[in-house]
Amino acid sequence: MENSYGYPRKAKNDVSLQELRDRLAEFAQVRGWDQYHSPRNLLLALVGEVGELSEIFQWKGEVARGLPNWSPDDKEHLEEELSDVLLYLIRLADVCGLDLGQAALTKIVKNARKYPIVNQTAT
Amino acid sequence: MENSYGYPRKAKNDVSLQELRDRLAEFAQVRGWDQYHSPRNLLLALVGEVGELSEIFQWKGEVARGLPNWSPDDKEHLEEELSDVLLYLIRLADVCGLDLGQAALTKIVKNARKYPIVNQTAT
Amino acid sequence: MENSYGYPRKAKNDVSLQELRDRLAEFAQVRGWDQYHSPRNLLLALVGEVGELSEIFQWKGEVARGLPNWSPDDKEHLEEELSDVLLYLIRLADVCGLDLGQAALTKIVKNARKYPIVNQTAT
Amino acid sequence: MENSYGYPRKAKNDVSLQELRDRLAEFAQVRGWDQYHSPRNLLLALVGEVGELSEIFQWKGEVARGLPNWSPDDKEHLEEELSDVLLYLIRLADVCGLDLGQAALTKIVKNARKYPIVNQTAT
Repeated sequence: MENSYGYPRKAKNDVSLQELRDRLAEFAQVRGWDQYHSPRNLLLALVGEVGELSEIFQWKGEVARGLPNWSPDDKEHLEEELSDVLLYLIRLADVCGLDLGQAALTKIVKNARKYPIVNQTAT
Repeated sequence: MENSYGYPRKAKNDVSLQELRDRLAEFAQVRGWDQYHSPRNLLLALVGEVGELSEIFQWKGEVARGLPNWSPDDKEHLEEELSDVLLYLIRLADVCGLDLGQAALTKIVKNARKYPIVNQTAT
Repeated sequence: MENSYGYPRKAKNDVSLQELRDRLAEFAQVRGWDQYHSPRNLLLALVGEVGELSEIFQWKGEVARGLPNWSPDDKEHLEEELSDVLLYLIRLADVCGLDLGQAALTKIVKNARKYPIVNQTAT
Repeated sequence: MENSYGYPRKAKNDVSLQELRDRLAEFAQVRGWDQYHSPRNLLLALVGEVGELSEIFQWKGEVARGLPNWSPDDKEHLEEELSDVLLYLIRLADVCGLDLGQAALTKIVKNARKYPIVNQTAT
């Protein structure tokens, strides 16, 4: 099955939002953490992680795509902070009862209408 | 195929991080936006969206799970802001050359080791 | 000298934005840190501190005004994080060449026009 | 009166944190807004304003100190967003019962001890 852009919808090693959502729900449930996972608690935890993500970039000046001069340790640290933001975002959507994956697809379609492709051809 | 928690790995209507990543890359490419998508530009755009997400919750006091008294319009607005955060996060990971899905799975495993399940049994 | 609300403009032990601005400028200058204090570096440092501020509140549920049950250590920690946000904000305004104090007064006046006082009298 | 760095403690047109704090308290009180000004509500409002501040800088790449090519309108917009962050920060400290000005001075002293001045002389 392919999407409208022509690449395969599901590659191997692919990770889905529902899988992450279910793992996080299980993770909280078996630890008795559900009582702490109110929407605003999770939102503030998300803001905390966005802060840690920003700290990685704060004294670096402009950073090139692909992070050419970063050490493996620095890249791993960045992966962890990006993940923390993602995991709290997924958990927040879940406790709000919302389907984040479908919402994201819907938003991409809405953005595509808002910003139509301008065809730039020259003779 | 099932994961270790016993629910199916891929449900229908499931959305994967790679699918969203590829759609966003295509979206930026055909609009000539790649030139603006440096890591720190995308990070600040992410912070901007986290701000919009926070604005939704700012005057509400504590909010119950499932958003019981929210109107459909308010829920849709929340879905859009959650999506905007997700889309910039995915795009940021992509231009950094990182695999966000694998990073998230790795982080969940690391968190599981950091916070072992405490068995609470009573007779 | 009194302001329009009738309380004294300058109390003893008062701290001004210009004093903090000047101290921070001196602080950076004597440490050779000016080279790192670009606007976007300082902005990301500010976001990092807002994250640390949010972490203090993240698992607490609703918090009452005056922080009635907080320990002195927790209050001191909060004072430090509030201060970090303030100090980066003042520094950011300074390197942008803007007068934060005057800007804040102007904004209060603008807000007062935007949200006029509604007189609620009943017979 | 001069501080330890030798510049005047209070310049004319100086604005103090206590003055802003008192004006904001009055502002909320006469509008009946105190009921909404809980610590976490104000914190989320602050995060919202930090988002708006970030949006100003998000697509600009590196920005030079002094904002050399910015229009007066863009500078005024920036002043407003910086002010909004400041005003919510002051208000948050106030409803928590904390003295933000003294806390900031204390933090500067603590930072000075943490980061001693390295004397770099060469013959």
